[in-house]
Amino acid sequence: MQVIVPDLDAAAMEAAAERQGRLTKPAGALGRLEGLSVWLAGVQGVSPPRPPERVRVVVFAGDHGVAGSGVSAYPSEVTAQMVAGFGAGGAAVNALARLVGAGVRVEDMAVGRPSGSIDREDALTDAEARAAYDRGAAVADEEVDGGADLLIAGDMGIGNTTPSAVIVASLTGTEPVLAVGRGTGIDDEGWMRKTAAVRDAMRRVRVADAAIDPLRLLAVAGGADLAAITGFLVQAAVRRTPVVLDGVVSCACALVGDRIAPGLAAWQVAGHASTEPAQALALAALQHEPLLDLRMRLGEGTGALLAVPLLRAAAATLAEMATFDGAGVSGPA
Amino acid sequence: MQVIVPDLDAAAMEAAAERQGRLTKPAGALGRLEGLSVWLAGVQGVSPPRPPERVRVVVFAGDHGVAGSGVSAYPSEVTAQMVAGFGAGGAAVNALARLVGAGVRVEDMAVGRPSGSIDREDALTDAEARAAYDRGAAVADEEVDGGADLLIAGDMGIGNTTPSAVIVASLTGTEPVLAVGRGTGIDDEGWMRKTAAVRDAMRRVRVADAAIDPLRLLAVAGGADLAAITGFLVQAAVRRTPVVLDGVVSCACALVGDRIAPGLAAWQVAGHASTEPAQALALAALQHEPLLDLRMRLGEGTGALLAVPLLRAAAATLAEMATFDGAGVSGPA
Repeated sequence: MQVIVPDLDAAAMEAAAERQGRLTKPAGALGRLEGLSVWLAGVQGVSPPRPPERVRVVVFAGDHGVAGSGVSAYPSEVTAQMVAGFGAGGAAVNALARLVGAGVRVEDMAVGRPSGSIDREDALTDAEARAAYDRGAAVADEEVDGGADLLIAGDMGIGNTTPSAVIVASLTGTEPVLAVGRGTGIDDEGWMRKTAAVRDAMRRVRVADAAIDPLRLLAVAGGADLAAITGFLVQAAVRRTPVVLDGVVSCACALVGDRIAPGLAAWQVAGHASTEPAQALALAALQHEPLLDLRMRLGEGTGALLAVPLLRAAAATLAEMATFDGAGVSGPA
Repeated sequence: MQVIVPDLDAAAMEAAAERQGRLTKPAGALGRLEGLSVWLAGVQGVSPPRPPERVRVVVFAGDHGVAGSGVSAYPSEVTAQMVAGFGAGGAAVNALARLVGAGVRVEDMAVGRPSGSIDREDALTDAEARAAYDRGAAVADEEVDGGADLLIAGDMGIGNTTPSAVIVASLTGTEPVLAVGRGTGIDDEGWMRKTAAVRDAMRRVRVADAAIDPLRLLAVAGGADLAAITGFLVQAAVRRTPVVLDGVVSCACALVGDRIAPGLAAWQVAGHASTEPAQALALAALQHEPLLDLRMRLGEGTGALLAVPLLRAAAATLAEMATFDGAGVSGPA
């Protein structure tokens, strides 16, 4: 499977960079905001770009059979309970979305219907993986058609950092011990169980030669939620809509998506560095530098939402600041 | 001179930390937002704390005689031009303040009336330093009386990173070459001139034994703007009002202020890491970990303004998230 994503608008990026050079500040003094403003011009195809105002978070929820192998600090029933919490507006993603005026949508991909336990069986059939991928792509289409100008893929699913670690480690050639994190906060014994499960799943990936076929990888070692996020990320780029990546789950899917659609990463920025080692591995492979590092590890889209004000700041400074010529400010001596 | 600042409210902080432990998320999963929420409870004296809504930036503007020694990439006339730009709403601080609903005030401490060239003469007389300090404290009183619940000290002044580097290097025992940065973006020759000026000013500080007397240090090697910022930061804490530190200028003043009022740093968070080495030295000495690292070096209060949404996120998550008991969510197995 191969999908073509468009290039960013080079002319808009050039115009944005040229305008940055005329703003009343020393060149480079706005640091990473300057590059962000150029990126926003590239994804929007206009300079100066607009601050993203119609931000949508889609939380892809799903259960994972591997949770039964003791890889999480929490029981699987928490997935459904948290999904109910999203509906009631009482989760972290709700509070942070309200702050930036973002909408939250929950997409139930497999709550209470766990994907297969990847340490010993495939998560999905190939047909199920394709259907979940297509569902995620359809959700992206719906959101873009609804007017979204910035998308975030959130996640909720007890056990979901385990397939994420398997995928990232398999695609980056990393040993399990370097890719496995504490997830929701497992103790040392739990971490050893999780690492064993990741090792077993990675062996299954190797035996199936699944790392060379992204959809097959999602079927063997992913899950319905991860397949849907991958489709969502790819289709967002097809529809020329920028994405802020969140934690290890969305970053693992971004890595898979980049195999389906080479160049996909150009449509994304990394919202934050999570404490999951596989997230750092995925970001490095995609050459993304996270905007925030607050030692968060919650998922749901929370880290990405915190980065939204930085994107708005990048657009606002480029659009609203006076220029040296316009304001009569002297340049360097 | 010694000023007593109040302690944070320990009971409110304890209540906030206890509430954090009951929110529907794994313990610690919100990372630094959790500590920020506890700090906000401590400065506000209530749990859960309110998101800061009445944010005020005071930009202390002033010229520096040492700019005549070729330490900046820009001529001194830019200070007045930029102050005019603040009035017109066209500077970076204006754009970023609008995004977070903050008010901007400019306090002209010495625009066009440069403080003495610190490489060869005192910046101010002791009486001038005290008057400027008192002016800054009076501004803090005015802002708190006006309802501000979060304060930021911005800066504008060609040459102002030079006295900042002198103060930080003198108080931390650092050699000039390790404390001097590129400021607005000087070239190698300018950096050598700046480092020579910092070295000469540090020798003057040593000869005057000024490092042991904060106000004397501001007179010998500071400037009217830096003295005012120091008074502003100290009085903010006296009035139990939290501060977000910005770049090297406000951090140098925070270091001086901590000598005047031991424990001052408890009322502050560091908004961002600038690229000025003296800022990192000051933050380390004050045991502040910056919230953002976007490689900015603009001053004006811009880095601090970008951190405001993070404080609001910290308060909102603590106040608005459901608790495990309240939401019927299962805890760790």
